[in-house]
Formats: sequence, C-alpha cells, structure tokens
Amino acid sequence: MDKNASSYAYTVEPFTEDCFGHLSWGRLGNLILRCASMHAGEHEFGFEQMKRLGQAWVLSRLAIEMDHPLPTGAHFEIETWVDRIYRQFTDRHFTVRLADGTVCGHATSTWSLIDFQTRQPADLTKLSDGGFTQTLIPERGAPIAPAGRIRLKHASHTATHRAAFSDLDINRHFNSIRYLELLLDQFSMEHLEAHPVRRIEMAYCLEAYMGDELEVWRDDDLNNPLRTLFEIRKNGSEVVVKGSVES
Amino acid sequence: MDKNASSYAYTVEPFTEDCFGHLSWGRLGNLILRCASMHAGEHEFGFEQMKRLGQAWVLSRLAIEMDHPLPTGAHFEIETWVDRIYRQFTDRHFTVRLADGTVCGHATSTWSLIDFQTRQPADLTKLSDGGFTQTLIPERGAPIAPAGRIRLKHASHTATHRAAFSDLDINRHFNSIRYLELLLDQFSMEHLEAHPVRRIEMAYCLEAYMGDELEVWRDDDLNNPLRTLFEIRKNGSEVVVKGSVES
Repeated sequence: MDKNASSYAYTVEPFTEDCFGHLSWGRLGNLILRCASMHAGEHEFGFEQMKRLGQAWVLSRLAIEMDHPLPTGAHFEIETWVDRIYRQFTDRHFTVRLADGTVCGHATSTWSLIDFQTRQPADLTKLSDGGFTQTLIPERGAPIAPAGRIRLKHASHTATHRAAFSDLDINRHFNSIRYLELLLDQFSMEHLEAHPVRRIEMAYCLEAYMGDELEVWRDDDLNNPLRTLFEIRKNGSEVVVKGSVES
Repeated sequence: MDKNASSYAYTVEPFTEDCFGHLSWGRLGNLILRCASMHAGEHEFGFEQMKRLGQAWVLSRLAIEMDHPLPTGAHFEIETWVDRIYRQFTDRHFTVRLADGTVCGHATSTWSLIDFQTRQPADLTKLSDGGFTQTLIPERGAPIAPAGRIRLKHASHTATHRAAFSDLDINRHFNSIRYLELLLDQFSMEHLEAHPVRRIEMAYCLEAYMGDELEVWRDDDLNNPLRTLFEIRKNGSEVVVKGSVES
C-alpha cells in the first residue's frame, strides 16, 4: 500500500446496524469522517494541528456509494488518501473493503480550510513549508463520481427538525452525518427495503446551530427516477445542505 | 479478572464526541449494549443463540452514571458481568475505566427473555441445562443504584418526535439509546454545560415503531432539584419509556 494512504480496521458490531441488519449509513459516514481526521492527523495536517494555526477543516462535499452493504460481524477496513489540492479545495477519497479484499464501496469528499478569524478559505497551494503536498497521491484519483449539481425545481416541504443537543458535533455545529440521516428519514422503511440506497451525495453550504428549525425540502430528479433530491433550509430561504439519495 | 467478566477496549475517536468534547452519552450507551451483546454471545446466551431457541433479550431498565467524562483520544475499557437471575429478570453490570485503571463510571441493566411466539418472558431459573447460571458472579453486585421508580405528577408536554428510519434498530424497533438521546435533547446546550449530566435512568415499557408519534413529557423531581423526570408516550396515554436525567 502507498505510504501516503492509510487503512483503518473496523468490525460491524451489534447495535451499529440499521433495521435491515447492515452497518447504517450514519455509522459508515461517521467512520469515514473519523478516518479522514486520523489520516490528516498522522500527516500533520489534522484538526489539532490546524487549530494551532487558527484554521479548521470544513467538509464541503461528500459522496458515498455502497455496492455491498456490510452485515453484522463483518471485518472491514476504510482506506483513505488525498489526491489533489486546487486553490481553496482538496479532495480526499475512501475505499471500503472487507478483510478478504472484496471492495464494498467508496467515498469521495472535498474540504476547505477556513481561518477562524476571517472565516475565509485558505489557498491550499500556498501553505507554509508546502503544506501537505508531500502527502498527495496524484495518480490515485476519485474512485467514484464526486457529488454533482443538485437543483430543486418543484420542491415540497416534507419535514421540520429542530436542531438539538444530540445533533451537535464538537464544534457545536449540526453534525454533518446527522444531515445525511435526516435525508434517509424522509423515506419509509418499506421504500428503503424495496429500493436499497446505493449512493448518497451531500453538499454542505451553511452551518446550523442548536435550536435552528431545519426544513427538509424534496424533489424528484427528472433525469433519474432512482434519485431523489433534497435541500435542508433554515430561516425560510437559506440553504444549509443540498443532497441526493439514489437507489 | 474473573473469567466470567469480559472487558472490551475502545478509544474515543474523532466524531464520536458531543459538543463538549466528551464521548457522547448516546455512543456510550450504544457501546454498553454492544458489550452486553458480545459478552452474552461469548457465553452462549447471546442474541444469536437465543434467536435459535425462539427467544430474544429485551432491555427492561438501564442506569448509567459517569463521574469522569471521556475526552477525545482516551483509551478506555468497558467491563461487564452478570450477577443474578430472579425469575423473569437478570441483572447485568458495567464498569467504564481508563486504560490506566481509573474508574470513570458504571452502568447497571435489567433484561428479560421474551418468547417470539407467546411474547411472554421466560423463567430464567428454568432454562435448559441451567441456562447461563454458570456465568453469574453473585459476589459482584450492582456498582451503582439501579434505575428507580419514576412517577410524573405535573408533567408538561415538551416535544413530539416521529420515529424515522435512522431511529430503528435491527429488530425494527425504536432504538433503546435514541430514547436516551431524545431525553437529553429536551435541555439547552447552555443548561447541559452549566449542569453536566452525571446519571441517566431509563425504564423501557413498550416498543415504538417506524412512524409512531412519540410525545416527550417532563416533570421536576420534587425530592431532587438536580433530577428531571420524563415519560415518552404514544397514542395519547401509552407509556413507551420512563427516564430521568440528573446533574
């Protein structure tokens, strides 16, 4: 394995499954973010190191695609690597495989580095000492298509969720993965059983905070009958997250 | 360590913390249930073994007490053992300690074994081949007080939550630990920061399912100003869960 990629081993333990007996999308998304954080930390550009420089990583886009869901007891690993930096953004990718090497799915994500004071994104090509360019694996690009454009045309309001304590992450923002769960929660169990989710896309636009009233808006994708589009809005028209769920 | 107790090692990984930077109560509760399941499985009375006999473990009560919350990166273990069987119930206990041996908290739980067909609890003193009596450690009783009686007198309705996909467990019931999070979600972040939660009690009365409208009712504990009492109800008056949160 490339020295600039890292793999983290996990097991699907009891009580981490969804109601179909598979590792839940929420858990999987959470593990993906953990692996991102651990890999960056090992290469000196993690949350802790960046905090000391007055900067924080912000997740901008995330797409996860699973061809084979992981059942209880499965031993699996998540490999992660970063392939490129392009001004304010960097792309990090993931492969999820069973201990025997079978590939079960992939993910791809885009991040920016925000200055605490100015709230502006840093130019990642101009970090001191070359930043983390030594860690890039340019020849290992995205294993799946990145999160695409999501545009709702005839959206309908399907739910309202008030952001509460257990939704918050360590930065006191609404947790990135809870948004993903909120999208899945717009489907019935019967629908999800008949049409297993294969791909989820998320585009993070604004932060939400404790007490925010989050409105979930939904629309069909006219170009893809298997895909449903979502926006999560607050204060009427502010788009917090866009996303899609595809079976 | 006693051969009939088992310990499971965990680390507080990034993205498993609450907004105060501690392992969240939800994650901790989830790990506690996982350890229960793994220990029972190792001793041949786990979910899988009981399923083959047409029976399922049902959590009846749970109390968790944390004196020292676990920060990011902490290496800790959860030790679990069972001390007694009394007709339809058995008590399982837990100690949470740091890798250096410092005790951070405890939990205690009560379980019954329900027959899939009759929905009746089995008499645990009369299981074939003595059941799991060989696994008991009678001399190691509950490390903390068990969940006590919870009686709401002047309850007020504080929230309604519609059970959704991401709330469900592998049995398609509303997840035991999500109820616990639902209770914590009734407090503001400021309140929880000023009055850190030290103890949570849960008594599970009825199952809830996808689509159920769960009403959260709340009352002060007149005997203990640090304790808030809760009921989660469905269909008007049916009590699904009783609980308390104490700082």
